Amino acid sequence: MNAEKIPDIIIGRLPVYLRALQRMADNGIKTTSSQELGEHVGISAAQIRKDISQFGEFGKQGTGYSIAYLLDKLREILKVDRIWDVALIGAGDIGHALANYQGFQNRGFRIAAIFDNNKEKIGEKIGDFVVQDTDKIVETIKAANIKIAMLTVPAAAAQSVADKLVQAGVKAILNYAPISLNVPNNVKVQYIDPSTHLQRMTYYL
Amino acid sequence: MNAEKIPDIIIGRLPVYLRALQRMADNGIKTTSSQELGEHVGISAAQIRKDISQFGEFGKQGTGYSIAYLLDKLREILKVDRIWDVALIGAGDIGHALANYQGFQNRGFRIAAIFDNNKEKIGEKIGDFVVQDTDKIVETIKAANIKIAMLTVPAAAAQSVADKLVQAGVKAILNYAPISLNVPNNVKVQYIDPSTHLQRMTYYL
Repeated sequence: MNAEKIPDIIIGRLPVYLRALQRMADNGIKTTSSQELGEHVGISAAQIRKDISQFGEFGKQGTGYSIAYLLDKLREILKVDRIWDVALIGAGDIGHALANYQGFQNRGFRIAAIFDNNKEKIGEKIGDFVVQDTDKIVETIKAANIKIAMLTVPAAAAQSVADKLVQAGVKAILNYAPISLNVPNNVKVQYIDPSTHLQRMTYYL
Repeated sequence: MNAEKIPDIIIGRLPVYLRALQRMADNGIKTTSSQELGEHVGISAAQIRKDISQFGEFGKQGTGYSIAYLLDKLREILKVDRIWDVALIGAGDIGHALANYQGFQNRGFRIAAIFDNNKEKIGEKIGDFVVQDTDKIVETIKAANIKIAMLTVPAAAAQSVADKLVQAGVKAILNYAPISLNVPNNVKVQYIDPSTHLQRMTYYL
């Protein structure tokens, strides 16, 4: 397995397989086939076999995949066989929704710090967290060795906050601000912008 | 221009170009180059020229693109030269955040109806909307001729709600529930699941 050689588009499908397999496991299912998994995720069985085979031999011809084994392996490949601390920047509506979101549990993440620059929000308690001043981003994130951040600030503030996150050593940013970020090549960014996602579909309407 | 022949990956980049160009226009900028636009969105100038040329001739060699003209054309191509009504299903934290979100304005969308199955939420006022019973989804969406929905219900409820949306004539679903949906081929689905997006990045950490 050579991380450099796996196309990013395959990496992008692995979390979807992981999520479907986790759901099957939660429902007490022990084994599956590429056919069955494919029906769950809307991807062809052949594509699934090809994707998974990039990382080694996981199933036996005719007997299918052990879900527990495949879950372990996918978590290991995606490095979510551990819990990552995540910094949340922006305590607005979306920030609050993320801070209260139960969907990070068992997926490899927990929010570890929340920041905002609004004096009225600093000191506010959200769940188990006290909102900290964005002035503290660099020192706090460095001290806690946090490598992942979610950015839910307004577009106009996003680049300057991203610069601070990079300075603090963050290597992965999930950006909810509706703007493209400029970051060094060794920092990954994923974008969540509902309008952009919707516009990608209206083309076909 | 033949809609069937443009690869989906190109369609996926157009909303990102549109967003960056809108931002430049908001800042009073009148013309741009593929080079400059590329720096904003982190995509090569050559790729941008290739993507845009799929739809015709938009720029002149040496003088660049008129931002106003390109905005008009991209909105026309993506069919956001109009306002689409969007149904929101699920009035939890994320549903509330979306209902209050200002980021749909000027991007082609407005929320037109909100539904939930929780008796305590039905009748609740969120912004300008009264939360309706999910039992009313099919008749309400059909009557209003709504073609787009955002789904922010729990994973366990998502497929059955999606089935109702399809029955109601919805052709595009933005799914926040952490589960893959089975829908007919003529219905588009886009997924927003922060854990999946984060897992796609942890692979590289």
